[in-house]
Amino acid sequence: MNGAHALIRTLVDSGVDTCFANPGTSEMHFVAALDDVPGMRAVLAVFEGVATGAADGYGRMADRPAATLLHLGPGLGNGLANLHNARRARTPVVNIVGDHATYHKRFDAPLDSDLELLVRNVSGWVGWPTEPAGVAPAGAEAVAAALGPPGCVASLVLPADTSWSEGGEPALPARRGERSEVPADTIDVVAKALRSGEPAALLLGGTALRTAGLIAAGRVAGATGARMLAETVPARLERGAGRPAVERLGYLAEFTMAQLAEIRHLVLVDARAPVSFFAYPGKPSDLVPDGCEVHELATGSADAPGALAALAEALGAAGGRAAVQPSGRPDRPTGALNGEAVAQALGALLPEGAIVSDEANTAGLWSAGATAGAPPHDWLCLTGGAIGQGMPVATGAAIACPDRRVVSLEADGSALYTAQALWTQAREDLDVTTVVYNNRSYAILNLELGRVGAAAPGPAAASLLDLSNPDVDFVALAGGLGVPGVRATTAEELTAALERSFAEPGPYLVEAMLPPGL
Amino acid sequence: MNGAHALIRTLVDSGVDTCFANPGTSEMHFVAALDDVPGMRAVLAVFEGVATGAADGYGRMADRPAATLLHLGPGLGNGLANLHNARRARTPVVNIVGDHATYHKRFDAPLDSDLELLVRNVSGWVGWPTEPAGVAPAGAEAVAAALGPPGCVASLVLPADTSWSEGGEPALPARRGERSEVPADTIDVVAKALRSGEPAALLLGGTALRTAGLIAAGRVAGATGARMLAETVPARLERGAGRPAVERLGYLAEFTMAQLAEIRHLVLVDARAPVSFFAYPGKPSDLVPDGCEVHELATGSADAPGALAALAEALGAAGGRAAVQPSGRPDRPTGALNGEAVAQALGALLPEGAIVSDEANTAGLWSAGATAGAPPHDWLCLTGGAIGQGMPVATGAAIACPDRRVVSLEADGSALYTAQALWTQAREDLDVTTVVYNNRSYAILNLELGRVGAAAPGPAAASLLDLSNPDVDFVALAGGLGVPGVRATTAEELTAALERSFAEPGPYLVEAMLPPGL
Repeated sequence: MNGAHALIRTLVDSGVDTCFANPGTSEMHFVAALDDVPGMRAVLAVFEGVATGAADGYGRMADRPAATLLHLGPGLGNGLANLHNARRARTPVVNIVGDHATYHKRFDAPLDSDLELLVRNVSGWVGWPTEPAGVAPAGAEAVAAALGPPGCVASLVLPADTSWSEGGEPALPARRGERSEVPADTIDVVAKALRSGEPAALLLGGTALRTAGLIAAGRVAGATGARMLAETVPARLERGAGRPAVERLGYLAEFTMAQLAEIRHLVLVDARAPVSFFAYPGKPSDLVPDGCEVHELATGSADAPGALAALAEALGAAGGRAAVQPSGRPDRPTGALNGEAVAQALGALLPEGAIVSDEANTAGLWSAGATAGAPPHDWLCLTGGAIGQGMPVATGAAIACPDRRVVSLEADGSALYTAQALWTQAREDLDVTTVVYNNRSYAILNLELGRVGAAAPGPAAASLLDLSNPDVDFVALAGGLGVPGVRATTAEELTAALERSFAEPGPYLVEAMLPPGL
Repeated sequence: MNGAHALIRTLVDSGVDTCFANPGTSEMHFVAALDDVPGMRAVLAVFEGVATGAADGYGRMADRPAATLLHLGPGLGNGLANLHNARRARTPVVNIVGDHATYHKRFDAPLDSDLELLVRNVSGWVGWPTEPAGVAPAGAEAVAAALGPPGCVASLVLPADTSWSEGGEPALPARRGERSEVPADTIDVVAKALRSGEPAALLLGGTALRTAGLIAAGRVAGATGARMLAETVPARLERGAGRPAVERLGYLAEFTMAQLAEIRHLVLVDARAPVSFFAYPGKPSDLVPDGCEVHELATGSADAPGALAALAEALGAAGGRAAVQPSGRPDRPTGALNGEAVAQALGALLPEGAIVSDEANTAGLWSAGATAGAPPHDWLCLTGGAIGQGMPVATGAAIACPDRRVVSLEADGSALYTAQALWTQAREDLDVTTVVYNNRSYAILNLELGRVGAAAPGPAAASLLDLSNPDVDFVALAGGLGVPGVRATTAEELTAALERSFAEPGPYLVEAMLPPGL
């Protein structure tokens, strides 16, 4: 069999059964081989950023990688921003990038570029077979690398001739590695700090934000009074009624500093010490307060939930009860539509088991609060800060979890990056409800312009932060891409539209018309 | 003044007065400084690929660079594909990429990545100032590098603190370098080859495809019988009635080989020896026929039109007449709409001085032939093969040449990459007529699947080449982005729509409904 056939067989045998593809000529043999192997689902994305973001959303929810299929350097370029987000999320992704045939490289054909540079920008692992026999083994290695722990973007560059030539054989399937146990000494040091009576907090990230980790953390918090914090932009946070609640660190450095001001022991659990998203004149980058000791409980490939359980045991709280979020929904909002009303509607209606892909940014500030007591659900954040993540991640999450409603919360500026995801949602008939927060503004940048200390904007500057003239009609845009939708101008209209969409299968878009710039 | 202010002043003094921007927080001081310097036009793109493609289109038509303004690695990633096309076109571009403050880099904040790798992928020159005093001088160097000759993408990485800190001073404006004269020996060797009586061709590219070069080449051809060929995808070809005509090499390697089969002397004039776009099993990559001698007349920074003039003189044809394309338009098409009918309508109606941004790919095959005798116009091709170029390049060309109609020919698959360009066309009220060739298919890939020798596609493979289910409604999509349009299902409807758009200012989109897959 040829290299492509052997690769696809190996991927399927390794549990990689979904491929988000935007192929070109150099990938045609991979495409042709898809029908030779039962069990691989190929999903077309009409832009690479959709394919990579969907692979990210899929990996976050399935806890195993999807494959991508991208076309040479420019195709990878188009997919880089969402691979950046996946890298920050430590999502397992098998990123397959087709390349020219090995013997064709020296001719520097028009689509050629220095692909290695791009691959290195986002990848925790890179494989680049040069003969067909090497393709399937590299594929197995890619799956193993992607699975980790920790998960990563594992990039497999696939020269066209290794794909089309005979000489491939399926490789042994890849298996997930074990997470390492955290040493007892580390547990003891942290336990001692938490017993000191000084103000302490657990800063939870990554795997610690799933239910098992949260429950163990809740026991620790209950026994010691430590606060439970979450990193600013978790890849996936399990939350809602009946689950231990965590307080996410704020996006604004000032806010984070206020949250951490009294803390004297900050325990990192699969999380990094907090830093400011951006530098601002005269403001610190490192947000750990002076006099606060930072303890790393679990990091990298360590078993964070296991470490939290061990910590609870060391503190005599192994059988303890973790405080959980009480059930409760806000009333349905009425009257004027604004960010708070959207949040209230979500809180009132969010279905049990929903997956929220949150790229609502400024206007979405109130959503997390209003949904805290909604039935259990998952919350997926903009891990790498590269906008254009939300709709693709929603798409991939819906494919990973076909029985769950996905709610895609999208700021208007971000929605304009990768709205092509709607097309894939329509083709695959995915249960995704998109809410576009249309405030005709890059509201975050209006805020940031002041925060960096720049003067009040003149007309040229203001024009770059403004999304009016022309106003975007997101319902028309979605309709063009095959997704029906409706515009909501009041809280009642929004609520009715959400309720209808949550009750019906398939994708739908609700355009929430918000006051300008808010 | 701060670094940003000094930079913008230096850019304007150097003739760079247009900036295609999609900024983020780290660029806010550059944004704020735009209003401190008269003469810099800031144009918002709502996706980076639009900004970089617009800079490419602008540079091709203005023969001087526009600036971009991009946000960190992910922003550059989103703009890479069109910078790749600009690199292949040797378009002058000053590519400004904001970065975190120098002192913030070590914290590896969420949006950080190895930016240097990405910059190196596309740039002929890289500057990376680390203090405010270095910013304006680096800006002047960037302009000089972008101008060349030859033109290139010159990337200036701008750390936020070098932008916001005081200590900047405007630098001396940049000037364009001189092209080098081609040595007389080289002229003599080529003249001798052309006098040999053996079949010969001039392969013209880059600067040789402007009128001066074409006229000189036409004199050489007239004196020697050499054929006049053009590279497959010229950055900018001046053509139409009254200009010397050239025959473009085909995209398909088989076709190029047939065009070159008899040639014994191939003279490269600012062009590269022809290679296949892709490798195919059993087919050559190098398309120069056996026994054909390749002569480099002018390359890189050499003065190609000057070399052609010197060659004409050496051949005693300096005062000769170059054969030119006779004037002539096809009749308006009637009846069924297909790629030939679209081409015929363009030939019948193309306005004098039009700028055609051609990304129609498969369905656009007939356009060049049908417009050959139309009034003089420019033709801009997909130089790097990275789709998503057409609409952004059309946007930049319209800003560079506000008195000319831009005709943007778009394959449906390519249109789905960077349709956000329509929003900028609406905001800037640009005279751009977009024709979308809607055949609901990646027709080129259906073709390529056969050419690479892959078996007839099964259902999974076929689904990746098909753009139906859902059918895209490009008129709705355009309307959502602020550009009015109409769907044409007959040749008469298309002709009427084009005529109306060519007569009225502002952007317009015509969706040409073609037979599926053609």
